[in-house]
Amino acid sequence: MKNEKLDVIGFGNAIVDVLAKCDDAFLEGFAIPKGGMILIDDEKAAAIYGAMAPGVEISGGSNANAIAAIASLGGAGGFVGKVAADSLGDIFRHDLRSMGVEYDTGSLENGPATGRCLVNVTPDAQRSMATFLGAAAHVTQDDVDEAQIARGDISFFEGYLFEQPHARDGFVRACELARKHGKRTALTLSDASVVERQGATITDFIRDHIDIVLANEAEARALFDTDNLSVITEKARALAPLTAVTRSEHGSILVPREGDAVEVAAHTPDALEDTTGAGDAYAAGFLLGLARDYDLARAGALGALAASEVISHFGARPAASLQQLASDAGLI
Amino acid sequence: MKNEKLDVIGFGNAIVDVLAKCDDAFLEGFAIPKGGMILIDDEKAAAIYGAMAPGVEISGGSNANAIAAIASLGGAGGFVGKVAADSLGDIFRHDLRSMGVEYDTGSLENGPATGRCLVNVTPDAQRSMATFLGAAAHVTQDDVDEAQIARGDISFFEGYLFEQPHARDGFVRACELARKHGKRTALTLSDASVVERQGATITDFIRDHIDIVLANEAEARALFDTDNLSVITEKARALAPLTAVTRSEHGSILVPREGDAVEVAAHTPDALEDTTGAGDAYAAGFLLGLARDYDLARAGALGALAASEVISHFGARPAASLQQLASDAGLI
Repeated sequence: MKNEKLDVIGFGNAIVDVLAKCDDAFLEGFAIPKGGMILIDDEKAAAIYGAMAPGVEISGGSNANAIAAIASLGGAGGFVGKVAADSLGDIFRHDLRSMGVEYDTGSLENGPATGRCLVNVTPDAQRSMATFLGAAAHVTQDDVDEAQIARGDISFFEGYLFEQPHARDGFVRACELARKHGKRTALTLSDASVVERQGATITDFIRDHIDIVLANEAEARALFDTDNLSVITEKARALAPLTAVTRSEHGSILVPREGDAVEVAAHTPDALEDTTGAGDAYAAGFLLGLARDYDLARAGALGALAASEVISHFGARPAASLQQLASDAGLI
Repeated sequence: MKNEKLDVIGFGNAIVDVLAKCDDAFLEGFAIPKGGMILIDDEKAAAIYGAMAPGVEISGGSNANAIAAIASLGGAGGFVGKVAADSLGDIFRHDLRSMGVEYDTGSLENGPATGRCLVNVTPDAQRSMATFLGAAAHVTQDDVDEAQIARGDISFFEGYLFEQPHARDGFVRACELARKHGKRTALTLSDASVVERQGATITDFIRDHIDIVLANEAEARALFDTDNLSVITEKARALAPLTAVTRSEHGSILVPREGDAVEVAAHTPDALEDTTGAGDAYAAGFLLGLARDYDLARAGALGALAASEVISHFGARPAASLQQLASDAGLI
């Protein structure tokens, strides 16, 4: 049975992570930037995977991780993204649905396999990623469901996927439908390199279609072409109705078009194990707060709390019930 | 390039583990015995998986875990087992080959998917398994390669797979070839329930074909129908040229047909995290020692060391180089 109302509908890359250990020479050999992410084709994916150590597989994808965190917070989440009709696709679908996420995008037939992110972990615990998008890149506007968007409060888009032309067409279509039904839209920039490559294309998309922008500091610097936080704040006001700039242990700054910016403190984790997924979890808490009409400070605090859980263990999806943690903290 | 000589060739279930958390009520609902293993068909697998929490996938299979440990010890290992031509099959194959294991069994076409073991972990850290064999059950004598057996020192068979009639025919064929080429054979009983179900069939198979029997205490009790260790020892001598009985923290007893039994102390792990795979790792060290003509005490100590590494962390395959650990301990 479907939820009548969805708090957040995510549009993102449907990807399974493959994690294995490596040394620095391995990264250099395949020109994988340490701590970074590159896109690779199937030939390079086969070469890298063939040389990788034995791995562990776990569902991933930036936006899908955020929607999993929405579900863990007790929110109603939906996801739109493309897998192939193969066993990794089944695993990806299971892992979202088993958390209660509504995920009905049809599987890709007669195309590439389900996408995977080859995550190589060096002894210094840094994670370097090489992503074969596979089926994930084949999401189109045909996968956008107007009835679902009409049931949703916020439609949330992944910057990584903005670089795929057909997916971008889908984003535009979804944004138009969200506006038609009086709903809000949100975009995470995903990576500074996305901003640099897309330039005016992404700025125009935000100006025309997006209500809420999520960026870490590096992405915000790239988007607004300045290192000055005051200038970033001013330019953010000019571009979008609401911008959240996350700053790791320095917390986050929430910049509404009108009214004062709100500073939110970071939530100290029990332990710092693995920062992967911190931004996705922050987005989940923040957007769920907005969907529930919390004020900015409380929505930001919910984001910070969710991020603190995800960085306290290995893996980018919540290991504990975020709803319980948030309830204990008096945030929901 | 193939190794000219293989220390151990394993014949076992080619299976990927899917690990997720659950509560006791979940196990009861699906009649999964706590801490045990049941075989399930595809319909029940779909029902259990559909109800399971988000999971993590990692290559498994008892015998394959042992062969991975052989490779980690620096030995030359081969594996014979059946996956389907699907992404989980690719993952299983990669994870063995990336350790240097020779694994060339053809993938199953037009049959069930790659086998998987649904591992549900309760809050008390017990692992309860429901296994859908899928393609793994379809290994036959056609998958036995005489040239490979002739290059191997010990052919090692998994008791779980003994219950599949076509696989058992393959075991018999492989044993006949091993004898023809003057090679040794080994069998692990896998589980007391296998012994109970198979009765005289497995006893006869051992008497006719097996040089080395590996059993934990429960399996040995089932096989010899007695709780008395002295009687077990006597009956073991009568049945097989060499029997190893593993007794967890009480170490192991090695019983040659002629000469004194040898007691081997357990190797205390750095931490006790997860006992899954302990028997497989013991088998790896012990059989590699025999392949290298170590005396019984040294081969048993190598098995105990390998087991101590595998139980010190989550997961049934070695996380550290067993070769390095064994070298540090002066065992190889």
